[in-house]
Amino acid sequence: MQVRPTAIDGLIELTPRIFHDERGHFFESYNKPLFTSLGLPMDFVQDNQSFSTKGVLRGLHFQSEPFAQGKLVRVITGKVLDVVVDIRPDSATFGQHETFVLDAALANMVWVPEGFAHGFVALEDSIFSYKCTNVYNKQAEGGILWNDPDLGIDWGVTNPNVSEKDLILPTFKSLFAKVS
Amino acid sequence: MQVRPTAIDGLIELTPRIFHDERGHFFESYNKPLFTSLGLPMDFVQDNQSFSTKGVLRGLHFQSEPFAQGKLVRVITGKVLDVVVDIRPDSATFGQHETFVLDAALANMVWVPEGFAHGFVALEDSIFSYKCTNVYNKQAEGGILWNDPDLGIDWGVTNPNVSEKDLILPTFKSLFAKVS
Ligand SMILES: Cc1cn([C@H]2C[C@H](O)[C@@H](COP(=O)(O)OP(=O)(O)O[C@H]3OC[C@@H](O)[C@H](O)[C@H]3O)O2)c(=O)[nH]c1=O
Ligand SMILES: Cc1cn([C@H]2C[C@H](O)[C@@H](COP(=O)(O)OP(=O)(O)O[C@H]3OC[C@@H](O)[C@H](O)[C@H]3O)O2)c(=O)[nH]c1=O
Repeated sequence: MQVRPTAIDGLIELTPRIFHDERGHFFESYNKPLFTSLGLPMDFVQDNQSFSTKGVLRGLHFQSEPFAQGKLVRVITGKVLDVVVDIRPDSATFGQHETFVLDAALANMVWVPEGFAHGFVALEDSIFSYKCTNVYNKQAEGGILWNDPDLGIDWGVTNPNVSEKDLILPTFKSLFAKVS
Repeated sequence: MQVRPTAIDGLIELTPRIFHDERGHFFESYNKPLFTSLGLPMDFVQDNQSFSTKGVLRGLHFQSEPFAQGKLVRVITGKVLDVVVDIRPDSATFGQHETFVLDAALANMVWVPEGFAHGFVALEDSIFSYKCTNVYNKQAEGGILWNDPDLGIDWGVTNPNVSEKDLILPTFKSLFAKVS
């Protein structure tokens, strides 16, 4: 497992070793003792899978405390631009974001700790998969408008396919007025 | 989650609810509280993913005690014939098998408890995915010859692509001579 820390504390990109042979290939997408040895001893209680056609943008989403979710995200087919925004009020990088190209051919994944808003745009038809440290809680769902100018995210797409629900999400400033 | 028990005690087929919308679809492939409420309170510690071209047959595999693995198996793309053989010496169905067509379009999965040999043949190019209750242990790996006549498995294929390692696996009788 290759491990790449990012400029944001706790946010890590991981790339597993893939074994190729004449049948196809094989890899471990998760191994608890290995992840624990890498400093990621979390328990995952829910796995989600979504399919998005090219141009679909899902996000930016989070669940509020005490239902916050850490997420281990990756794609199984296709390619997405994955975006995470640090919304931890005490963080030195509060309000900052990182982007990652998740590519099925690499099987690279990102560990997104609790306290981030997360979303992605499908660069191709893509199957997205993630493991969560906390279960889904509709009441705790929160979000930030994907194209909020204050976040300054370069999604690399002009006219993404966004759900009605996501088009009316609040801005970062309106959400965090109290702490900023 | 739709639940279908089989003729073999503990062996269960599960089919999640898939939410479709204009972006694609979404489903929960695993939810610990839900699985616990269904009588499947196990901890999963490893997730594996393999890709197999059409005609590849992997199996029949198991890990010996105390490293036995319960497996929650499914496909993410494509279709496989999934085969499980009951190798629990005390089981009323010892030596018997069940087959399942795992289909990405349905997202159906099978809970294979500890004490089974498991394998599959890819009916199309397929991405196979499974969660394990115990980590990989090379030393504990065991197997049974896929076309052992005593098992009488109808794989529905004539000339599968089998690894060299799997072609020389022992027969069921030679493995379980002491208990049969
Ligand atoms: C997240 C989630 C959703 N659902 C249902 C609710 C809807 O009927 C359907 C789709 O839900 P959406 O919230 O529209 O899904 P999506 O837009 O894909 O949201 C996800 O995408 C980006 C991710 O960052 C985020 O974890 C997650 O909220 O699935 C569940 O049953 N369980 C869940 O965990
Ligand atoms: C099962 C496994 C394998 N590996 C490595 C060893 C090899 O280099 C490579 C491929 O291993 P194989 O044993 O040839 O994989 P496969 O034939 O796909 O075996 C699987 O297929 C059928 C499943 O029933 C079974 O759990 C599993 O043994 O991956 C790992 O690193 N971790 C693992 O958990």
